[in-house]
This record gives sequence, C-alpha cells and structure tokens, in this order.
Amino acid sequence: MTPHSITPEALRRQARDGTFTSHTSGYCSGFVQTNLVVLPKSWADEFFVFAQQNPKPCPLVAWSQKAGDPIVNVENYAIDIRSDLPGYRVWKSGELVSEQNDVSEYWQDDFVSFLIGCSFSFEEALIADGLDIRNISQGTNVPMYDTNVACTPTERFHGNVVVSMRPFVPKDAIRMIQICSRFPSVHGAPIHFGDPAAIGIHNIEAPDYGEPVEFRTGEVPVFTACGVTPQAVIAAAKPPICITHQPGKMLVTDIPNSRLAVF
Amino acid sequence: MTPHSITPEALRRQARDGTFTSHTSGYCSGFVQTNLVVLPKSWADEFFVFAQQNPKPCPLVAWSQKAGDPIVNVENYAIDIRSDLPGYRVWKSGELVSEQNDVSEYWQDDFVSFLIGCSFSFEEALIADGLDIRNISQGTNVPMYDTNVACTPTERFHGNVVVSMRPFVPKDAIRMIQICSRFPSVHGAPIHFGDPAAIGIHNIEAPDYGEPVEFRTGEVPVFTACGVTPQAVIAAAKPPICITHQPGKMLVTDIPNSRLAVF
Repeated sequence: MTPHSITPEALRRQARDGTFTSHTSGYCSGFVQTNLVVLPKSWADEFFVFAQQNPKPCPLVAWSQKAGDPIVNVENYAIDIRSDLPGYRVWKSGELVSEQNDVSEYWQDDFVSFLIGCSFSFEEALIADGLDIRNISQGTNVPMYDTNVACTPTERFHGNVVVSMRPFVPKDAIRMIQICSRFPSVHGAPIHFGDPAAIGIHNIEAPDYGEPVEFRTGEVPVFTACGVTPQAVIAAAKPPICITHQPGKMLVTDIPNSRLAVF
Repeated sequence: MTPHSITPEALRRQARDGTFTSHTSGYCSGFVQTNLVVLPKSWADEFFVFAQQNPKPCPLVAWSQKAGDPIVNVENYAIDIRSDLPGYRVWKSGELVSEQNDVSEYWQDDFVSFLIGCSFSFEEALIADGLDIRNISQGTNVPMYDTNVACTPTERFHGNVVVSMRPFVPKDAIRMIQICSRFPSVHGAPIHFGDPAAIGIHNIEAPDYGEPVEFRTGEVPVFTACGVTPQAVIAAAKPPICITHQPGKMLVTDIPNSRLAVF
C-alpha cells in the first residue's frame, strides 16, 4: 500500500497502534486533513466565537458535540482524538510541555476538540488544475509570515493573521483565486497579492515560519490566511492547558476534499 | 419616469419611434445591455466559431435563430434589431459608412444578429457589493487598451484582445475576481492584473480607447477582456457589410443582470 492509497481509517488505526508516527503530507490523497486544537470548555466557548468571526484563518471543519467526549464523528467514522493522530503537542499556559503519540493521560472531562481546515485540500485542487505549487515542487514547507492584519478579537483571543505565500503569474493567480474561493473551509480566497509591505511583511525572503520559495519571471506573491493563526492566538492567550497536533502530523479524515467545495 | 426606472420595453419602443437616441448608460438599471453585431450568414457562421473559442472577449448573450429574421426573441419580448437600439453604425468592407437611428433600409435577408455581453452588467454587481468603479465614480468612459494577447483565430477573424482596465487595491481585486467569475457571459474573470507591460501595454496613462482613470494609493490595474475586441476583429476582416450599435447606445434587454450569474 502506497502513502497515496492507504485509507484514512487504516492510517488512523496505525497512528492509534503507534506504528505510524510520521508526517501525513502525501498520505491518503483526496481526503481532508485537519489541524487539531483541544481546549477546556471554559475557553472553547470563546474559541467558537473567535472561529466564527475569523473564518479565513480559522475555518472549522468539525468539532466535539459534547464536552469531554474524546470521540468526534466524521463521515460515520468515530475518530478518537486522544490517539488517532500521529503526533501531539501539549501546552500549559502557552508553553510547550510535551510531545506525545497519544494524549490519553492528559484527557480532561471538559475538553472540546476543534478540527480546523488545512491548505493540503486546496493545494490538491490547484495541482489537479495544472498549477505549480512552488513549496510542493520545491519539496519544502510553505513560507508563512506574520502580518499587520488584525483578527477580529474576542475577550481573550486576539492577534494578527499569519499568512502562507505562494508565487503565481497573474493569470494563474486569478485561477487560484477562483478555485480557492470554492473552498471556504480551507482558508478560502487569498487575502492579498503583490506588495508584501501593504500587509506588514518587510522581507519576503525571510519567512517567519517555513522556508522561502523561488520566484520566477513575472510571478507575484499571493497570500492566504493560515492555520498557524489560531495556534499563535491561543499560545498568546495562555489557557491552562491546550492540545494541538504536531506540525505536519495532521488528523486524516474520510471527508473527500471535493466535499469541501461550496459550488 | 427616471432613467433608472424606465422599463427596457418602453425604452426600446422610444428608440423604435425615434424619440430616444441617447446613450443608454444608467438606464433600466438591473437589466442586461448588449453590444450588437450583424453579419451576413456567410460571415456569421465563422463568427459563431470565433465567439465560441474566444468567450472572454466575445461572450454571446443571444443571437438570431434564423438568418434574415430581424426579430430576436429575448425573455419573451420580440426585439426588432433594425430599430430597437438608439443608434447604429453601418460598415462596408471595414469602413464606417453611416450612422443611423434605424437600419431597415440596409437589412438583408441573410443577416444574422449577435447580442454580445457588456461590462455594464458586472459593474452593477461590483457597485452593489460596495466596490468603487473608478470610471463610473469619475464619470468617464472606461480606459481600454490594445494588448499582445492573441485571440484564437478563425480563417478570417483574428487579432489581439482589447482589455478594459479598472484599478483596485488587491483585497478588492480579489473580490472583483470572485464576482466577475460568476458572470462568464459578460467577459467573466479578468485576464491579468499588475504589470501592464506583461500583456503589451506600454503606457497605462494613454489608453487606446476611452479615457484614463486615477490610481489611488496601493491600487493595481486589473484588466478584463472587452467587447471592443470583436468589433476590431471584424473591422480588420472587412466583411462586405456589417451593422453594429453606436458606442454607448446599447441594446437594452429584459434579462435581469442577476440571471447571467452562473452560481
């Protein structure tokens, strides 16, 4: 079984067994992968509001129906949030305290889980359309940047949008905007293109996260709101405890990517 | 009755009577206005092919069902192509030979009429969404430019795409791309933004048609394929006879603009 053809259920089972602990990029092609955020209910209620009013950086794909329940049902599969991801991070008061393959020992009866859309879904749609995604063709992590664009804050959650950046010639950028507009639950249309300084980015060669990518003749940078935003916002808010996925070790669901298209 | 509230049928009747001979911009808001091209059948068959393979500059909204019939039925209204527009141009072998309010005397029993989408429809949708359309807020004709982007030619019809240009900040350009993508029969998504030289435009201050518009801080030019393209292509092909509308004196139909939205 190749990484592409393994089923999401089989991959989650291997993650649960502890036999799959690697990055999920390139696995289970065609299916939605998500970021994970787990918060105590006293913080989760406010996070729902934050997500609702910041849908581009924080698009919710699924969430717990009942606080404390470690099972989230997605497409008729019961996903055990404690064990079905290949890697987790445990945060206390905004500090990373542990990396785990299983977080059962940290589970609390007030935990609420959030599955947040990830760029893998729209990148797959762009590649299928014939566009070159530089971070993928280059084999590097997408470049990401802090901006001066403020999220709409709640009482405890506030901060600026973090963006990922992909270079395109304008013709391809227009097509990219069309395709990404169809996928609001994986960050939707970009928020900016062209002059980086207009959104507070002063050196496009030096991303704040990930790695720089090559620009070719005529290409302009296109900036998309990024799932790193809620992670940074939560870290800054310092909840007593929070669990997230390890970067790149995503939750693989059985939702077909095409299902996220709104038209 | 104000220009906005006059019905398309009433305006066409006044045009037929010879009592309305002015520009149609701002009249019958909410309804589709179109460019007109009338060609003999021996040229019209090829023009159908040209339009099919160049849908962005040459989007067909309606056409004659039978050569020679001066009536085109649109939304259950019988439009008399010979008289229902406020102004016509008659071309022979690519030369303008006459401007008329009625072209009955030129009508031939092999004429085929083409109604071609016009930017008024998408501009109305953009304004409704809160965007500033500079040529409208400035009260001038939209700037248009010859480009080096070739139309897909047929045997006798060939030439480069003519574009209209509207300035937007990138955030509004992204929204403009989304909205215009919904309207493929009025030129659809833009074909380029940013560097004018990339499509062969060397002086943005000096449009080839229309008037220049002001750029404000952070705005980039956004270029949309324009209905002047088929007029230029036809003039260059020099058919023995061709009838078009006079610039700005469009055919006003009873099609609601929203009907042109594909989603």
